[in-house]
Amino acid sequence: MVEKITLAHGSGGKASHELIEKLFVANFGGKSLLAMEDSAVLQAGKERIAFSTDSFVVDPIFFPGGDIGSLAIHGTVNDLAMRGAKPLYIAVAMIIEEGFAYRDLETIVRSLKAGADKAGVEIVAGDTKVVQSGKADKIFINTTGIGLLDMDIDISAGNGRPGDRIILSGTMADHGTTILCQREGLQIQGGFMSDSAPLNHMVAAMIEECGKSIHVLRDPTRGGVGTTLNELAQSSGVGIRIRETDLPVRDDVRGACELLGLDPLYLANEGKLLAFVEPGAVESLLAVMQKMEYGGNAGIIGEVVAEHPGQVVMQTSIGSSRIVDMLHGEPLPRIC
Amino acid sequence: MVEKITLAHGSGGKASHELIEKLFVANFGGKSLLAMEDSAVLQAGKERIAFSTDSFVVDPIFFPGGDIGSLAIHGTVNDLAMRGAKPLYIAVAMIIEEGFAYRDLETIVRSLKAGADKAGVEIVAGDTKVVQSGKADKIFINTTGIGLLDMDIDISAGNGRPGDRIILSGTMADHGTTILCQREGLQIQGGFMSDSAPLNHMVAAMIEECGKSIHVLRDPTRGGVGTTLNELAQSSGVGIRIRETDLPVRDDVRGACELLGLDPLYLANEGKLLAFVEPGAVESLLAVMQKMEYGGNAGIIGEVVAEHPGQVVMQTSIGSSRIVDMLHGEPLPRIC
Repeated sequence: MVEKITLAHGSGGKASHELIEKLFVANFGGKSLLAMEDSAVLQAGKERIAFSTDSFVVDPIFFPGGDIGSLAIHGTVNDLAMRGAKPLYIAVAMIIEEGFAYRDLETIVRSLKAGADKAGVEIVAGDTKVVQSGKADKIFINTTGIGLLDMDIDISAGNGRPGDRIILSGTMADHGTTILCQREGLQIQGGFMSDSAPLNHMVAAMIEECGKSIHVLRDPTRGGVGTTLNELAQSSGVGIRIRETDLPVRDDVRGACELLGLDPLYLANEGKLLAFVEPGAVESLLAVMQKMEYGGNAGIIGEVVAEHPGQVVMQTSIGSSRIVDMLHGEPLPRIC
Repeated sequence: MVEKITLAHGSGGKASHELIEKLFVANFGGKSLLAMEDSAVLQAGKERIAFSTDSFVVDPIFFPGGDIGSLAIHGTVNDLAMRGAKPLYIAVAMIIEEGFAYRDLETIVRSLKAGADKAGVEIVAGDTKVVQSGKADKIFINTTGIGLLDMDIDISAGNGRPGDRIILSGTMADHGTTILCQREGLQIQGGFMSDSAPLNHMVAAMIEECGKSIHVLRDPTRGGVGTTLNELAQSSGVGIRIRETDLPVRDDVRGACELLGLDPLYLANEGKLLAFVEPGAVESLLAVMQKMEYGGNAGIIGEVVAEHPGQVVMQTSIGSSRIVDMLHGEPLPRIC
């Protein structure tokens, strides 16, 4: 019996999943929450819409490659895009600590706007609360988004099928490593930075090229590629095989991870996506992705199998196999 | 030049309005934000939808008449209803302080669910973040909602016209007074409590009865009836006259306000609405409202005039007139 909420409940790993299942899904019910997708797909009159919410509590709020403002836009835009929706509208709600510098707020507001412009979404609603000094940590931002879906699009965490190839759109762990290095005061060598970026334009191009051959899309944020693949294996009731040698990690990121004692497989990405795709469509899909701003390093990292449903197995660089579990143990709080 | 964010920026009064205008509207632009409505009305494909977000940071989180969970549902449901929309879907995002009692979270989750059931909305999306102990105050909840609008409904803060009668659906200041008494440790005499309630069913009945005769709807939350009427006078470019003797305040609430040195006109309500209505429709509208659960004490408190546009003038109980300004001065933080 859990008595108190811990940081692990917010880490995106096992404890988070238990909290969601045992408390939220158990009480709220409903098909949408049960599916544990990046965003809910709903009927609004005659239209199908995607709807997604995320709060951002990242620490530090400014980091190489972005800030809490751009991150908050990208996060929600990407969650909508992962269902195949075209993101349209964003609501921004801020909780600000008394005494926060107006100039920093201005920087963040401009960053929100620039992020929205780049993604092609409109910020249409907002809310501001201020709490006493010491009752929040600088600023927390919630973004909630609405996207429109074509009637025949069916991209879902539950749609993976044996035989699907698994594509990762680029290098792993850039965001998580950047944040942790900043927080620990580590000098970042090699100039890597957060990959925070809007993926909706790439997703639109992917769908235009391959349509129904794309079964699953997901951005591996909190918990990283390792945790996200476990979620997808469970949601689809399939097994997943990946090859360690095919997992792209920048050398400098790998070096920083070794220094921090962390596995890039479990570190957050904020501008990458995983796609499960029919084998026949892989070549043309990769060609499309590699031409886009955020897909240059897209490649195949594994495949979906009928064996060991719910499990992710990795063929390691030394030729052995090991089970890749969800993130558990030491939580990495406030990575997004 | 503002250098730091203060509690007044979150109080719903003058400083809040300046922040919204000078920072948010100036940077984000867009028609929806400019209008400063309770919710944005947007085109989503062929459908018209309302979209609204609100973060709740109320302190204390449990209070007579509700808690942060029910408040978070009612607040967003009401913001959607104030545009004449039928609220459908709610996203709930929580920021929880490490160490928060699981049992309290469970109580709040059940309260969110009960609130949603009573309002007839579905909780379809969620997010949970946990921050270190001391980096947030127990729990903050963001709710964002989507509602559907009939094509011909046009209820807006800008639609008030000279001649309109102003209806208030019940007693003022119940929520604000309850929260402040709790916070100050004042024994509440007479048993008043927060009026936190979903108003969407009443609004639906009002629209069914009076349709286009209803020009403006608004729930006077942060800043109270006084601030809200100022916002409406400005948005509609009209003058407003109210009569102090027609403003309903419970005797025990009035007594508590005197003790606290606060004016009920500026204290938050969470289950009341203001309506601007054509004179010919007032009688039938009041009849409908007074039959509903949350409209028993509905009555006329004043009227819209062509004189003194942007200003609210109150005829006092002693027969004189005074200008009712927006809330400014001492802020009342974390009332919702």
